[in-house]
Amino acid sequence: MAKLTNFTYEELTIGQSATYSKPVTECDIQLFAAVSGDVNPVHLDPEFAAGTAFGERIAHGMLTGAIISAAIALELPGPGTIYVGQQLRFRQAVKIGDTITVELTVSDKQDRRKTVTLDCRAKNQAGKAVASGTAEVIPPGEKLELVRPELPPIRVG
Amino acid sequence: MAKLTNFTYEELTIGQSATYSKPVTECDIQLFAAVSGDVNPVHLDPEFAAGTAFGERIAHGMLTGAIISAAIALELPGPGTIYVGQQLRFRQAVKIGDTITVELTVSDKQDRRKTVTLDCRAKNQAGKAVASGTAEVIPPGEKLELVRPELPPIRVG
Repeated sequence: MAKLTNFTYEELTIGQSATYSKPVTECDIQLFAAVSGDVNPVHLDPEFAAGTAFGERIAHGMLTGAIISAAIALELPGPGTIYVGQQLRFRQAVKIGDTITVELTVSDKQDRRKTVTLDCRAKNQAGKAVASGTAEVIPPGEKLELVRPELPPIRVG
Repeated sequence: MAKLTNFTYEELTIGQSATYSKPVTECDIQLFAAVSGDVNPVHLDPEFAAGTAFGERIAHGMLTGAIISAAIALELPGPGTIYVGQQLRFRQAVKIGDTITVELTVSDKQDRRKTVTLDCRAKNQAGKAVASGTAEVIPPGEKLELVRPELPPIRVG
């Protein structure tokens, strides 16, 4: 995945799909807490979380939303996509160590505004749905092949 | 803000509102790229971003979604809330250095399932809408007053 490529409106077909997977680490939950500001102990404090209905720390719900948004931005339609809207239902808690796999499918194309509707399904490694919904996007106007930027190292603690 | 408190279903009234603000730093964008996996150069590469319609790097759209989710989890209804669903429209790009203010308003209560609908509006420091939408949540079943957890230090680069 050293290159990032994309699909223009004309290249996309109804039924076209792509998948994207991301493991959810303890570090990710701390970074998401920092980025959003959501420091709720159910995400950060093992002792507190043990006393909740979940029995252990869970990931922030919108972390799955972030992974879905990455699937759209990296895979379908990919770089240059304009994110118009997202509808999401959260179905099951994500735990530390889970791997989330997002499946995106083009469900409709709107020719006048050149927008595309994507069906979005996020599952854990056991195949259980953790979130699902619909995205509306404007696909990129031009074909791109980009070098994948490297992130600087990130250290927690 | 050393304590986190919440509102139960019975305590919430239609029209009740809360606000939550969060600055968006360069570090936040790198952390969101790490958490989601979305390393698109429009977010990370100043030179590439200068050549796009935005003219500079922009934050990931779902970073605003993350800030909205934090407003729900910290302020209204607060800790113990179960996030059922979120609908979002992205209205304007967020730039590095912007401060996002989320205004949440209880727009409806559904007595049978004890769910609450929240109107969600995110604006930048100029008062321009950057995202808006609706959240569906199950408010906490019990009143809580929690010590606000401290995050470990995070270093980028």
